[in-house]
Amino acid sequence: MKLLLISNSTMPGEAYLDYPKQQIKKFLGEKPVKALFVPYAAVTFSFDEYEQKVNDRFAELGHSVAGIHHCKDPKKAVKEAEAIVVGGGNTWQLVRMLHDQGLMQLIREKVLDGIPYIGWSAGSNVACPTLRTTNDMPIIDPTSFNTTGLVPFQINPHYLDANPDGHAGETREQRINEFIEINPKTYVVGLREGTMLWLEDDQLELIGKLPARIFRKGLEPIELRAGDDFGFLLK
Amino acid sequence: MKLLLISNSTMPGEAYLDYPKQQIKKFLGEKPVKALFVPYAAVTFSFDEYEQKVNDRFAELGHSVAGIHHCKDPKKAVKEAEAIVVGGGNTWQLVRMLHDQGLMQLIREKVLDGIPYIGWSAGSNVACPTLRTTNDMPIIDPTSFNTTGLVPFQINPHYLDANPDGHAGETREQRINEFIEINPKTYVVGLREGTMLWLEDDQLELIGKLPARIFRKGLEPIELRAGDDFGFLLK
Repeated sequence: MKLLLISNSTMPGEAYLDYPKQQIKKFLGEKPVKALFVPYAAVTFSFDEYEQKVNDRFAELGHSVAGIHHCKDPKKAVKEAEAIVVGGGNTWQLVRMLHDQGLMQLIREKVLDGIPYIGWSAGSNVACPTLRTTNDMPIIDPTSFNTTGLVPFQINPHYLDANPDGHAGETREQRINEFIEINPKTYVVGLREGTMLWLEDDQLELIGKLPARIFRKGLEPIELRAGDDFGFLLK
Repeated sequence: MKLLLISNSTMPGEAYLDYPKQQIKKFLGEKPVKALFVPYAAVTFSFDEYEQKVNDRFAELGHSVAGIHHCKDPKKAVKEAEAIVVGGGNTWQLVRMLHDQGLMQLIREKVLDGIPYIGWSAGSNVACPTLRTTNDMPIIDPTSFNTTGLVPFQINPHYLDANPDGHAGETREQRINEFIEINPKTYVVGLREGTMLWLEDDQLELIGKLPARIFRKGLEPIELRAGDDFGFLLK
Protein backbone atom coordinates (compact mmCIF):
# COMPACT_ATOMS: atom_id res chain seq x y z
CA MET A 1 0.00 0.00 0.00
CA LYS A 2 1.21 3.48 -0.85
CA LEU A 3 -0.20 6.59 0.78
CA LEU A 4 0.90 10.22 0.92
CA LEU A 5 -1.21 11.99 3.55
CA ILE A 6 -0.59 15.70 3.61
CA SER A 7 -1.71 18.06 6.38
CA ASN A 8 -2.64 21.04 4.23
CA SER A 9 -2.46 22.12 0.61
CA THR A 10 -0.81 25.47 1.04
CA MET A 11 1.42 27.38 3.41
CA PRO A 12 0.51 31.04 3.98
CA GLY A 13 1.97 33.25 1.26
CA GLU A 14 2.85 30.32 -1.01
CA ALA A 15 1.23 29.03 -4.18
CA TYR A 16 -1.36 26.23 -4.03
CA LEU A 17 0.19 22.80 -3.35
CA ASP A 18 3.64 24.32 -3.61
CA TYR A 19 5.32 23.00 -0.46
CA PRO A 20 4.43 19.31 -0.97
CA LYS A 21 5.10 19.22 -4.70
CA GLN A 22 8.56 17.64 -4.59
CA GLN A 23 7.21 14.85 -2.38
CA ILE A 24 4.26 14.33 -4.71
CA LYS A 25 6.71 14.06 -7.61
CA LYS A 26 8.84 11.53 -5.77
CA PHE A 27 5.76 9.61 -4.63
CA LEU A 28 4.29 9.28 -8.13
CA GLY A 29 7.64 8.60 -9.80
CA GLU A 30 9.21 9.61 -13.10
CA LYS A 31 6.73 7.99 -15.46
CA PRO A 32 3.84 10.39 -16.16
CA VAL A 33 0.73 9.46 -14.17
CA LYS A 34 -2.81 10.57 -14.93
CA ALA A 35 -4.44 10.33 -11.51
CA LEU A 36 -8.13 10.23 -10.75
CA PHE A 37 -8.93 13.40 -8.81
CA VAL A 38 -11.78 13.59 -6.27
CA PRO A 39 -12.77 17.26 -5.90
CA TYR A 40 -15.88 16.65 -3.80
CA ALA A 41 -14.61 18.60 -0.80
CA ALA A 42 -14.94 21.84 -2.79
CA VAL A 43 -18.02 23.75 -1.64
CA THR A 44 -17.61 27.40 -2.53
CA PHE A 45 -15.87 26.89 -5.87
CA SER A 46 -16.53 24.48 -8.73
CA PHE A 47 -15.12 21.01 -9.23
CA ASP A 48 -13.77 22.19 -12.60
CA GLU A 49 -11.90 25.06 -10.99
CA TYR A 50 -10.52 22.69 -8.39
CA GLU A 51 -9.35 20.24 -11.02
CA GLN A 52 -7.66 23.06 -12.93
CA LYS A 53 -5.84 24.32 -9.83
CA VAL A 54 -4.47 20.87 -9.11
CA ASN A 55 -3.58 20.25 -12.72
CA ASP A 56 -1.60 23.48 -12.86
CA ARG A 57 0.66 22.15 -10.14
CA PHE A 58 0.76 18.54 -11.30
CA ALA A 59 1.78 19.69 -14.82
CA GLU A 60 4.99 21.11 -13.30
CA LEU A 61 5.72 17.61 -12.02
CA GLY A 62 5.08 15.87 -15.34
CA HIS A 63 1.78 14.42 -14.08
CA SER A 64 -1.90 15.26 -14.47
CA VAL A 65 -5.28 14.62 -12.89
CA ALA A 66 -8.75 13.99 -14.30
CA GLY A 67 -11.72 14.92 -12.13
CA ILE A 68 -14.08 12.11 -11.21
CA HIS A 69 -16.98 14.56 -11.61
CA HIS A 70 -16.65 14.22 -15.40
CA CYS A 71 -17.19 10.46 -15.24
CA LYS A 72 -20.62 9.03 -15.98
CA ASP A 73 -19.65 5.94 -14.01
CA PRO A 74 -17.58 7.02 -11.01
CA LYS A 75 -17.23 3.43 -9.76
CA LYS A 76 -15.69 2.39 -13.04
CA ALA A 77 -13.38 5.40 -12.86
CA VAL A 78 -12.12 4.29 -9.44
CA LYS A 79 -11.69 0.71 -10.64
CA GLU A 80 -9.58 1.86 -13.57
CA ALA A 81 -7.57 4.54 -11.75
CA GLU A 82 -3.78 4.38 -11.83
CA ALA A 83 -3.59 6.71 -8.83
CA ILE A 84 -6.17 8.44 -6.64
CA VAL A 85 -5.87 12.02 -5.43
CA VAL A 86 -8.35 13.41 -2.91
CA GLY A 87 -8.24 17.16 -2.36
CA GLY A 88 -9.04 19.14 0.77
CA GLY A 89 -12.02 21.33 1.53
CA ASN A 90 -15.06 20.28 3.53
CA THR A 91 -14.70 16.72 4.82
CA TRP A 92 -18.45 16.36 5.40
CA GLN A 93 -19.47 17.00 1.83
CA LEU A 94 -16.60 14.83 0.59
CA VAL A 95 -17.64 11.89 2.77
CA ARG A 96 -21.31 12.33 1.89
CA MET A 97 -20.59 12.22 -1.85
CA LEU A 98 -18.27 9.22 -1.52
CA HIS A 99 -20.99 7.35 0.39
CA ASP A 100 -23.77 8.44 -1.97
CA GLN A 101 -21.80 7.18 -4.95
CA GLY A 102 -20.70 3.97 -3.23
CA LEU A 103 -17.02 4.82 -3.60
CA MET A 104 -15.64 4.51 -0.07
CA GLN A 105 -15.12 0.77 -0.08
CA LEU A 106 -14.00 0.75 -3.72
CA ILE A 107 -11.27 3.29 -3.04
CA ARG A 108 -10.16 1.22 -0.09
CA GLU A 109 -9.92 -1.92 -2.20
CA LYS A 110 -8.01 -0.21 -4.99
CA VAL A 111 -5.49 1.30 -2.61
CA LEU A 112 -5.05 -1.99 -0.75
CA ASP A 113 -4.34 -3.45 -4.21
CA GLY A 114 -1.41 -1.06 -4.57
CA ILE A 115 -2.79 2.00 -6.37
CA PRO A 116 -1.05 5.11 -4.91
CA TYR A 117 -3.26 7.45 -2.87
CA ILE A 118 -2.54 11.11 -2.24
CA GLY A 119 -4.73 13.19 0.04
CA TRP A 120 -4.44 16.53 1.73
CA SER A 121 -6.53 17.91 4.60
CA ALA A 122 -10.02 16.37 4.07
CA GLY A 123 -8.32 13.91 1.72
CA SER A 124 -6.12 12.76 4.60
CA ASN A 125 -9.15 12.52 6.91
CA VAL A 126 -10.85 10.00 4.62
CA ALA A 127 -7.79 7.72 4.71
CA CYS A 128 -8.57 7.17 8.42
CA PRO A 129 -11.19 4.86 9.93
CA THR A 130 -13.69 7.70 10.48
CA LEU A 131 -14.07 11.45 9.97
CA ARG A 132 -14.19 12.02 13.71
CA THR A 133 -11.02 14.11 13.85
CA THR A 134 -11.88 16.58 11.12
CA ASN A 135 -11.80 20.30 11.89
CA ASP A 136 -14.51 21.10 9.40
CA MET A 137 -17.98 22.43 10.01
CA PRO A 138 -20.60 19.66 9.69
CA ILE A 139 -22.52 21.44 6.94
CA ILE A 140 -24.17 18.22 5.75
CA ASP A 141 -25.00 14.83 7.26
CA PRO A 142 -22.45 12.39 5.81
CA THR A 143 -24.90 9.44 6.27
CA SER A 144 -22.04 7.50 7.92
CA PHE A 145 -19.01 8.67 9.87
CA ASN A 146 -16.96 5.76 8.52
CA THR A 147 -14.33 6.43 5.90
CA THR A 148 -11.81 4.20 4.13
CA GLY A 149 -9.77 3.00 7.12
CA LEU A 150 -6.63 2.72 5.01
CA VAL A 151 -4.67 3.54 8.14
CA PRO A 152 -5.78 2.33 11.59
CA PHE A 153 -5.20 5.68 13.31
CA GLN A 154 -6.85 9.09 13.05
CA ILE A 155 -5.22 12.17 11.56
CA ASN A 156 -6.01 15.68 12.69
CA PRO A 157 -4.76 17.79 9.79
CA HIS A 158 -3.85 21.47 10.21
CA TYR A 159 -2.91 20.61 13.78
CA LEU A 160 -2.22 23.78 15.71
CA ASP A 161 -1.07 24.42 19.23
CA ALA A 162 -2.73 27.59 20.33
CA ASN A 163 -5.85 29.63 19.93
CA PRO A 164 -5.62 33.25 18.82
CA ASP A 165 -4.83 35.46 21.83
CA GLY A 166 -7.80 36.08 24.05
CA HIS A 167 -9.98 33.35 22.51
CA ALA A 168 -11.65 31.07 25.05
CA GLY A 169 -12.84 28.25 22.77
CA GLU A 170 -11.35 24.78 23.14
CA THR A 171 -7.79 24.34 21.84
CA ARG A 172 -7.16 21.60 19.31
CA GLU A 173 -5.52 19.53 22.04
CA GLN A 174 -8.63 19.82 24.21
CA ARG A 175 -10.76 18.69 21.29
CA ILE A 176 -8.54 15.67 20.63
CA ASN A 177 -8.57 14.85 24.35
CA GLU A 178 -12.35 14.65 24.08
CA PHE A 179 -11.97 12.30 21.12
CA ILE A 180 -9.61 9.90 22.90
CA GLU A 181 -11.76 9.98 26.03
CA ILE A 182 -14.56 8.20 24.20
CA ASN A 183 -12.39 6.44 21.59
CA PRO A 184 -9.70 5.18 23.97
CA LYS A 185 -8.09 2.61 21.68
CA THR A 186 -7.37 4.94 18.78
CA TYR A 187 -4.21 6.94 18.18
CA VAL A 188 -4.62 10.46 16.85
CA VAL A 189 -1.80 12.08 14.91
CA GLY A 190 -1.85 15.86 15.14
CA LEU A 191 -0.28 16.63 11.75
CA ARG A 192 1.02 20.18 11.76
CA GLU A 193 0.84 22.33 8.64
CA GLY A 194 3.77 21.84 6.30
CA THR A 195 4.11 18.14 7.18
CA MET A 196 2.90 14.84 5.75
CA LEU A 197 2.94 11.10 6.33
CA TRP A 198 4.33 8.72 3.71
CA LEU A 199 3.22 5.12 4.13
CA GLU A 200 4.72 2.47 1.92
CA ASP A 201 4.03 -1.15 2.81
CA ASP A 202 4.85 -1.29 6.54
CA GLN A 203 7.01 1.80 6.59
CA LEU A 204 5.44 4.98 7.95
CA GLU A 205 7.46 8.18 7.82
CA LEU A 206 6.88 11.78 8.76
CA ILE A 207 8.14 14.40 6.32
CA GLY A 208 8.56 18.06 7.21
CA LYS A 209 10.27 20.33 9.69
CA LEU A 210 7.73 20.22 12.52
CA PRO A 211 7.08 17.23 14.76
CA ALA A 212 3.76 15.42 14.86
CA ARG A 213 1.90 15.29 18.16
CA ILE A 214 0.52 11.86 18.98
CA PHE A 215 -2.41 11.32 21.34
CA ARG A 216 -3.87 8.24 22.91
CA LYS A 217 -6.02 7.79 25.99
CA GLY A 218 -3.83 7.23 29.04
CA LEU A 219 -0.63 8.51 27.40
CA GLU A 220 1.03 11.87 27.70
CA PRO A 221 1.04 13.38 24.17
CA ILE A 222 4.23 12.42 22.30
CA GLU A 223 6.16 14.69 19.93
CA LEU A 224 7.83 12.72 17.13
CA ARG A 225 9.96 14.10 14.32
CA ALA A 226 10.98 13.02 10.83
CA GLY A 227 13.27 10.02 11.26
CA ASP A 228 11.53 8.78 14.41
CA ASP A 229 9.77 5.43 14.44
CA PHE A 230 6.04 5.70 13.68
CA GLY A 231 5.55 1.97 13.19
CA PHE A 232 3.57 1.55 16.44
CA LEU A 233 0.71 3.48 14.82
CA LEU A 234 0.17 0.64 12.36
CA LYS A 235 -0.29 -2.08 14.97
CA MET B 1 -40.87 31.59 24.79
CA LYS B 2 -37.86 32.69 26.79
CA LEU B 3 -34.32 31.87 25.74
CA LEU B 4 -30.90 33.11 26.83
CA LEU B 5 -28.33 31.84 24.33
CA ILE B 6 -24.79 32.61 25.40
CA SER B 7 -21.73 32.35 23.16
CA ASN B 8 -19.28 31.00 25.74
CA SER B 9 -19.14 30.26 29.43
CA THR B 10 -15.98 32.10 30.34
CA MET B 11 -13.80 34.97 29.17
CA PRO B 12 -10.04 34.39 29.37
CA GLY B 13 -8.75 35.17 32.84
CA GLU B 14 -12.21 35.28 34.41
CA ALA B 15 -14.06 32.81 36.64
CA TYR B 16 -16.43 30.25 35.13
CA LEU B 17 -19.74 31.81 33.96
CA ASP B 18 -18.70 35.12 35.44
CA TYR B 19 -19.38 37.53 32.57
CA PRO B 20 -22.96 36.39 31.85
CA LYS B 21 -24.04 36.04 35.48
CA GLN B 22 -25.91 39.34 35.78
CA GLN B 23 -27.91 38.52 32.67
CA ILE B 24 -28.66 35.03 33.99
CA LYS B 25 -29.89 36.62 37.22
CA LYS B 26 -32.10 39.06 35.36
CA PHE B 27 -33.36 36.30 33.05
CA LEU B 28 -34.38 33.94 35.87
CA GLY B 29 -35.78 36.69 38.06
CA GLU B 30 -35.79 37.38 41.78
CA LYS B 31 -37.67 34.29 42.94
CA PRO B 32 -35.20 31.43 43.55
CA VAL B 33 -35.28 28.94 40.68
CA LYS B 34 -34.01 25.37 40.82
CA ALA B 35 -33.25 24.70 37.17
CA LEU B 36 -32.77 21.33 35.51
CA PHE B 37 -29.16 21.20 34.34
CA VAL B 38 -28.06 19.13 31.34
CA PRO B 39 -24.31 18.43 31.74
CA TYR B 40 -24.07 15.95 28.83
CA ALA B 41 -21.57 18.05 26.87
CA ALA B 42 -18.91 17.33 29.50
CA VAL B 43 -16.46 14.75 28.17
CA THR B 44 -13.19 15.05 30.07
CA PHE B 45 -14.69 15.81 33.47
CA SER B 46 -17.63 14.34 35.34
CA PHE B 47 -21.25 15.42 35.25
CA ASP B 48 -21.07 15.88 39.03
CA GLU B 49 -18.11 18.23 38.73
CA TYR B 50 -19.92 20.15 36.03
CA GLU B 51 -23.06 20.48 38.14
CA GLN B 52 -20.97 21.72 41.06
CA LYS B 53 -19.20 24.32 38.94
CA VAL B 54 -22.49 25.71 37.69
CA ASN B 55 -24.08 25.60 41.12
CA ASP B 56 -21.21 27.59 42.58
CA ARG B 57 -22.07 30.44 40.22
CA PHE B 58 -25.86 30.08 40.41
CA ALA B 59 -25.68 30.18 44.21
CA GLU B 60 -24.30 33.73 43.96
CA LEU B 61 -27.43 34.65 42.03
CA GLY B 62 -29.83 33.07 44.50
CA HIS B 63 -30.61 30.18 42.15
CA SER B 64 -29.50 26.57 41.86
CA VAL B 65 -29.36 23.69 39.38
CA ALA B 66 -29.95 19.95 39.68
CA GLY B 67 -28.19 17.70 37.18
CA ILE B 68 -30.45 15.54 35.01
CA HIS B 69 -27.87 12.73 35.30
CA HIS B 70 -29.14 12.04 38.83
CA CYS B 71 -32.67 11.41 37.56
CA LYS B 72 -33.86 7.86 37.02
CA ASP B 73 -36.46 9.18 34.62
CA PRO B 74 -34.92 12.04 32.61
CA LYS B 75 -38.10 12.54 30.59
CA LYS B 76 -40.08 13.14 33.73
CA ALA B 77 -37.38 15.52 34.94
CA VAL B 78 -37.77 17.58 31.76
CA LYS B 79 -41.55 17.53 32.03
CA GLU B 80 -41.37 18.85 35.59
CA ALA B 81 -38.56 21.38 35.09
CA GLU B 82 -39.15 25.00 36.06
CA ALA B 83 -36.19 26.08 33.90
CA ILE B 84 -33.71 24.23 31.68
CA VAL B 85 -29.99 25.00 31.58
CA VAL B 86 -27.77 23.31 28.98
CA GLY B 87 -24.03 23.71 29.49
CA GLY B 88 -21.27 23.83 26.90
CA GLY B 89 -18.65 21.25 26.05
CA ASN B 90 -18.85 18.81 23.16
CA THR B 91 -22.01 19.36 21.10
CA TRP B 92 -21.82 15.88 19.54
CA GLN B 93 -21.96 13.99 22.80
CA LEU B 94 -24.66 16.34 24.09
CA VAL B 95 -26.84 15.78 21.03
CA ARG B 96 -26.24 12.04 21.06
CA MET B 97 -27.35 11.74 24.67
CA LEU B 98 -30.39 13.95 24.16
CA HIS B 99 -31.44 11.75 21.22
CA ASP B 100 -30.67 8.50 23.03
CA GLN B 101 -32.83 9.57 25.97
CA GLY B 102 -35.62 10.94 23.79
CA LEU B 103 -35.30 14.44 25.24
CA MET B 104 -34.86 16.69 22.21
CA GLN B 105 -38.54 17.02 21.36
CA LEU B 106 -39.56 17.15 25.02
CA ILE B 107 -37.23 20.06 25.72
CA ARG B 108 -38.64 21.81 22.68
CA GLU B 109 -42.19 21.36 23.90
CA LYS B 110 -41.43 22.55 27.43
CA VAL B 111 -39.67 25.68 26.21
CA LEU B 112 -42.45 26.43 23.72
CA ASP B 113 -44.76 26.15 26.72
CA GLY B 114 -42.86 28.98 28.40
CA ILE B 115 -40.20 27.32 30.57
CA PRO B 116 -37.03 29.49 30.46
CA TYR B 117 -34.05 27.98 28.62
CA ILE B 118 -30.43 29.01 29.17
CA GLY B 119 -27.64 27.57 27.06
CA TRP B 120 -24.04 28.42 26.44
CA SER B 121 -21.80 27.23 23.63
CA ALA B 122 -23.03 23.67 22.86
CA GLY B 123 -26.16 24.58 24.81
CA SER B 124 -26.80 27.42 22.36
CA ASN B 125 -26.14 25.11 19.41
CA VAL B 126 -28.95 22.76 20.44
CA ALA B 127 -31.46 25.64 20.51
CA CYS B 128 -30.98 25.85 16.71
CA PRO B 129 -32.57 23.63 14.05
CA THR B 130 -29.43 21.47 13.69
CA LEU B 131 -25.91 21.11 15.06
CA ARG B 132 -24.43 22.01 11.67
CA THR B 133 -22.72 25.19 12.88
CA THR B 134 -20.91 23.74 15.87
CA ASN B 135 -17.14 24.18 16.15
CA ASP B 136 -16.69 20.93 18.03
CA MET B 137 -14.88 17.81 16.95
CA PRO B 138 -17.35 15.08 15.90
CA ILE B 139 -16.11 12.58 18.45
CA ILE B 140 -19.32 10.55 18.32
CA ASP B 141 -22.13 10.00 15.81
CA PRO B 142 -25.11 11.98 17.15
CA THR B 143 -27.58 9.63 15.34
CA SER B 144 -29.35 12.73 13.98
CA PHE B 145 -28.07 16.22 13.21
CA ASN B 146 -31.43 17.72 14.21
CA THR B 147 -31.69 19.61 17.46
CA THR B 148 -34.57 21.47 19.14
CA GLY B 149 -35.21 24.18 16.53
CA LEU B 150 -36.33 26.64 19.18
CA VAL B 151 -34.99 29.40 16.96
CA PRO B 152 -35.19 29.17 13.16
CA PHE B 153 -31.60 30.33 12.58
CA GLN B 154 -28.20 28.80 13.33
CA ILE B 155 -25.76 30.12 15.92
CA ASN B 156 -22.02 29.78 15.61
CA PRO B 157 -20.83 30.30 19.19
CA HIS B 158 -17.27 31.45 19.99
CA TYR B 159 -17.33 33.26 16.65
CA LEU B 160 -13.88 34.57 15.85
CA ASP B 161 -12.53 36.61 13.00
CA ALA B 162 -9.02 35.42 12.39
CA ASN B 163 -6.82 32.38 12.54
CA PRO B 164 -3.63 32.48 14.60
CA ASP B 165 -0.84 34.10 12.57
CA GLY B 166 0.62 31.84 9.94
CA HIS B 167 -2.15 29.22 10.13
CA ALA B 168 -3.55 28.20 6.77
CA GLY B 169 -6.72 26.35 7.86
CA GLU B 170 -10.12 27.75 6.96
CA THR B 171 -11.24 30.80 8.91
CA ARG B 172 -14.57 30.65 10.70
CA GLU B 173 -16.07 32.87 8.02
CA GLN B 174 -14.94 30.45 5.30
CA ARG B 175 -16.52 27.57 7.22
CA ILE B 176 -19.81 29.42 7.57
CA ASN B 177 -19.70 30.34 3.88
CA GLU B 178 -19.55 26.62 3.16
CA PHE B 179 -22.58 26.11 5.39
CA ILE B 180 -24.70 28.76 3.67
CA GLU B 181 -23.64 27.52 0.25
CA ILE B 182 -25.50 24.26 0.81
CA ASN B 183 -28.05 25.61 3.32
CA PRO B 184 -28.98 28.77 1.40
CA LYS B 185 -32.20 29.60 3.25
CA THR B 186 -30.74 29.63 6.76
CA TYR B 187 -29.31 32.60 8.61
CA VAL B 188 -26.18 32.00 10.69
CA VAL B 189 -25.39 34.28 13.62
CA GLY B 190 -21.68 34.43 14.38
CA LEU B 191 -21.94 35.09 18.13
CA ARG B 192 -18.65 36.49 19.38
CA GLU B 193 -17.34 35.58 22.81
CA GLY B 194 -18.70 37.76 25.59
CA THR B 195 -22.06 38.18 23.88
CA MET B 196 -25.47 36.49 24.04
CA LEU B 197 -28.95 36.54 22.52
CA TRP B 198 -32.02 37.11 24.67
CA LEU B 199 -35.26 35.98 23.06
CA GLU B 200 -38.53 36.74 24.79
CA ASP B 201 -41.72 36.17 22.82
CA ASP B 202 -41.04 37.93 19.52
CA GLN B 203 -38.28 40.16 20.83
CA LEU B 204 -34.71 39.12 20.01
CA GLU B 205 -31.87 41.16 21.48
CA LEU B 206 -28.11 41.01 21.41
CA ILE B 207 -26.32 41.69 24.68
CA GLY B 208 -22.61 42.45 24.91
CA LYS B 209 -20.01 44.86 23.60
CA LEU B 210 -19.14 43.15 20.31
CA PRO B 211 -21.42 42.99 17.29
CA ALA B 212 -22.78 39.73 15.91
CA ARG B 213 -21.90 38.82 12.34
CA ILE B 214 -24.87 37.57 10.33
CA PHE B 215 -24.48 35.35 7.27
CA ARG B 216 -26.92 34.23 4.63
CA LYS B 217 -26.37 32.95 1.12
CA GLY B 218 -26.41 35.84 -1.35
CA LEU B 219 -25.91 38.55 1.30
CA GLU B 220 -22.78 40.35 2.33
CA PRO B 221 -22.19 39.51 6.01
CA ILE B 222 -23.91 42.04 8.28
CA GLU B 223 -22.51 43.37 11.56
CA LEU B 224 -25.26 44.16 14.07
CA ARG B 225 -24.85 45.52 17.57
CA ALA B 226 -26.84 45.55 20.79
CA GLY B 227 -29.88 47.75 20.17
CA ASP B 228 -30.11 46.85 16.47
CA ASP B 229 -33.15 45.01 15.13
CA PHE B 230 -32.66 41.25 15.01
CA GLY B 231 -36.34 40.49 14.36
CA PHE B 232 -35.75 39.43 10.73
CA LEU B 233 -33.97 36.33 12.07
CA LEU B 234 -37.25 35.03 13.47
CA LYS B 235 -39.18 35.16 10.19
